[in-house]
Amino acid sequence: MSGETLTHLDEQGRARMVDVSAKPDTVRVAVAKGEVRLKPETLALIRQGLMKKGDVLAVAQVAGIMAAKRTSELIPLCHPLPLHQVDVQLTLEDGLPGVLITATARTTAKTGVEMEALTAVVVSALTVYDMVKAVEKTAQITNIRLVEKHGGQSGDVVNE
Amino acid sequence: MSGETLTHLDEQGRARMVDVSAKPDTVRVAVAKGEVRLKPETLALIRQGLMKKGDVLAVAQVAGIMAAKRTSELIPLCHPLPLHQVDVQLTLEDGLPGVLITATARTTAKTGVEMEALTAVVVSALTVYDMVKAVEKTAQITNIRLVEKHGGQSGDVVNE
Amino acid sequence: MSGETLTHLDEQGRARMVDVSAKPDTVRVAVAKGEVRLKPETLALIRQGLMKKGDVLAVAQVAGIMAAKRTSELIPLCHPLPLHQVDVQLTLEDGLPGVLITATARTTAKTGVEMEALTAVVVSALTVYDMVKAVEKTAQITNIRLVEKHGGQSGDVVNE
Amino acid sequence: MSGETLTHLDEQGRARMVDVSAKPDTVRVAVAKGEVRLKPETLALIRQGLMKKGDVLAVAQVAGIMAAKRTSELIPLCHPLPLHQVDVQLTLEDGLPGVLITATARTTAKTGVEMEALTAVVVSALTVYDMVKAVEKTAQITNIRLVEKHGGQSGDVVNE
Amino acid sequence: MSGETLTHLDEQGRARMVDVSAKPDTVRVAVAKGEVRLKPETLALIRQGLMKKGDVLAVAQVAGIMAAKRTSELIPLCHPLPLHQVDVQLTLEDGLPGVLITATARTTAKTGVEMEALTAVVVSALTVYDMVKAVEKTAQITNIRLVEKHGGQSGDVVNE
Amino acid sequence: MSGETLTHLDEQGRARMVDVSAKPDTVRVAVAKGEVRLKPETLALIRQGLMKKGDVLAVAQVAGIMAAKRTSELIPLCHPLPLHQVDVQLTLEDGLPGVLITATARTTAKTGVEMEALTAVVVSALTVYDMVKAVEKTAQITNIRLVEKHGGQSGDVVNE
Repeated sequence: MSGETLTHLDEQGRARMVDVSAKPDTVRVAVAKGEVRLKPETLALIRQGLMKKGDVLAVAQVAGIMAAKRTSELIPLCHPLPLHQVDVQLTLEDGLPGVLITATARTTAKTGVEMEALTAVVVSALTVYDMVKAVEKTAQITNIRLVEKHGGQSGDVVNE
Repeated sequence: MSGETLTHLDEQGRARMVDVSAKPDTVRVAVAKGEVRLKPETLALIRQGLMKKGDVLAVAQVAGIMAAKRTSELIPLCHPLPLHQVDVQLTLEDGLPGVLITATARTTAKTGVEMEALTAVVVSALTVYDMVKAVEKTAQITNIRLVEKHGGQSGDVVNE
Repeated sequence: MSGETLTHLDEQGRARMVDVSAKPDTVRVAVAKGEVRLKPETLALIRQGLMKKGDVLAVAQVAGIMAAKRTSELIPLCHPLPLHQVDVQLTLEDGLPGVLITATARTTAKTGVEMEALTAVVVSALTVYDMVKAVEKTAQITNIRLVEKHGGQSGDVVNE
Repeated sequence: MSGETLTHLDEQGRARMVDVSAKPDTVRVAVAKGEVRLKPETLALIRQGLMKKGDVLAVAQVAGIMAAKRTSELIPLCHPLPLHQVDVQLTLEDGLPGVLITATARTTAKTGVEMEALTAVVVSALTVYDMVKAVEKTAQITNIRLVEKHGGQSGDVVNE
Repeated sequence: MSGETLTHLDEQGRARMVDVSAKPDTVRVAVAKGEVRLKPETLALIRQGLMKKGDVLAVAQVAGIMAAKRTSELIPLCHPLPLHQVDVQLTLEDGLPGVLITATARTTAKTGVEMEALTAVVVSALTVYDMVKAVEKTAQITNIRLVEKHGGQSGDVVNE
Repeated sequence: MSGETLTHLDEQGRARMVDVSAKPDTVRVAVAKGEVRLKPETLALIRQGLMKKGDVLAVAQVAGIMAAKRTSELIPLCHPLPLHQVDVQLTLEDGLPGVLITATARTTAKTGVEMEALTAVVVSALTVYDMVKAVEKTAQITNIRLVEKHGGQSGDVVNE
């Protein structure tokens, strides 16, 4: 890692949005994951909602997809880019116990879509938190990480 | 927890923004925390930036404050409310190793500001992630939780 | 109606956001309705989705609630205000055939919430349209109207 | 229509933003129309405003153009895309009586711009509603539909 | 000015949104002004547009009003607050030559509305710039300043 | 300048977003500048903040970069486009006295990025204003202008 620098800071240490105009447009995919840790009782309440027509997971999924589209508004040095697919999956996991969230973002662009996938995960997680907070004050959003990344000059990343 | 239900779902299980019009306006405070886990080398690069005029933490802090103001746009069933203070602190922690983020939100309103404090933490964390992702692909955002909450009918919460 | 003028235009005919600072804060409620007219076959496909965990109506409902919170961003002369409740109901109606949408908005403020209820209805309707447009090019959004309005100086309105 | 499914729902019925990355970029045009039905007296007041420098239709037109640019923020599963032209025309029609709104959106992209044209129409209509609501409580937004659509794999659509 | 500090920086020099929760809600008014300096020929083209139904000034006025409502989204440490009136006036001034913009913002809140009035002025000015930039590359936006401010603890300000 | 017209108005004088679909995508760069005029004492307070970890200029810089990405939301007839680089520099100038702001925007698109560079400058300037307004009521934002523009059919512009 010697010689490495943070590319979002210029030589004076000031923030900048990196110039990507010379990069080619390539297909980019990123997959991120994260968890909301809950009490078993809270998990049971969410599961109970699934029996009915609407449910916590459907709302959180929509929130995650919509947030992915607004990533560059939230993260100061993130480039705005088109999104060709956003997929958010939420599953109830007794093993955690809690909700496991997996988001995939895809585009053809000059920069990657890790931040879009990660933003989808955290906003889905916040939405689950919001919907259970009246019954549980100790929920935790945790383990948010990049799982895979394909396309672009820096090569593929497969973290798990 | 018997008899409890998720207040954001109606009797048919459909999502709803809960009616808070009968609640009094009271002073509300919430404190949330979270972490970005990094390699020691990445932490060293961020610390190095601090020696200069600009730095990763300053950008992440601004991003967190700005995101807190947009919480109700991101989280579907969250009530829009004024914010009378938002404070975001980021510190470098060799013990993690990584960045510890603490956000405080304050208002006088009919509902609490947990989601605003949590949103500030996660967007600050995403911003740190974005600024280090060129040098580290394995950063993790973790341990996002409510630390304290005061004001409102449900009483004080002190989780740690 | 003699002597009436459009309050959103000043004496020169220029647009303005009306000064409401002298008005008292009172409880305001508005209910709006609207329809998406569809072919019976499209309606059947939506109904079929209801058998599964997710569905068109759940997505459209979330979209309507979220849009209500952004009403003053979309409509130039509309005052920003807090929202204490937003409720959006979508039902499948064979009689139309199509989807009937009813939105209720509630706040305590100096101005009414008709526009918030109407915005929820139209954005829910657009979302239904978006989700069926691959199978039907002739859907219509129609009959968007204020049904009821309570609170404020101009008195109650009950249109149906 | 046998064998058709709603492409915005996956095999489990969960919402998704469809993957369009394999589609070619082609020129896309969509034209949508809609109406605001008003009392003849209200129409007269709007017409009177036209005599002066500012007017209801100018404000509604700007609102429609601006809303078209935010379509993908409002409609959960709609892809973000560039817009190369947005044109919104509003005309006073004694025959309705009311305001007839026609919006055209144009881009070069992987997906169509129907939703952008329709969003321009409905937000222009809401803006007219907002500006007349002090003098008329019974305005209706109605007959919002796609008129024409060109470009893309599904071929041309001409509904009227 | 001895002993004064910048209230938006904490004791470590970090940015913060100042805590205003202890301040009373009072009526606040601010008036700001600014100019777009143009060539006489450009001014003539704008004036010519005024003869027709639509015009540059009407679009710029709507843009300024809408921007005032989004002030706290743009300016990091600015408190979100309701707005009870926004008025933007644009006049053509041969003396400059150019466009003179005056914006007034009004609310009842814990903090002032200077930034809202100033934001309305600069976004109106940018809109004029955008509409004339095809015919003039040397327009200047200049002399943006607070003219008056009333309400709040720091007393009235009258700058001209 | 004879024969010239304002391209953002149609033949009836109505606003329109110009059709750029036939234009080629080319590399576009724009540089804009502007100033915040301050009292020497205020300048000294900002300079003092620079000694510490955070500072006024860092916050204003982030605000400018973020605003550039939202230009098409603020300016009604401005085309949405990707941004491949945004750079904002703020320097303290005793000669003004005040803060000199220079913003550069870069993209590959069908239209230029002057408005993005100018928007970055004005929002950075508003942010400086906001952070000093408690100690100085007479700050002025002034001399906002396009300095350079490259790419596109209308050729290079170099104003200084």
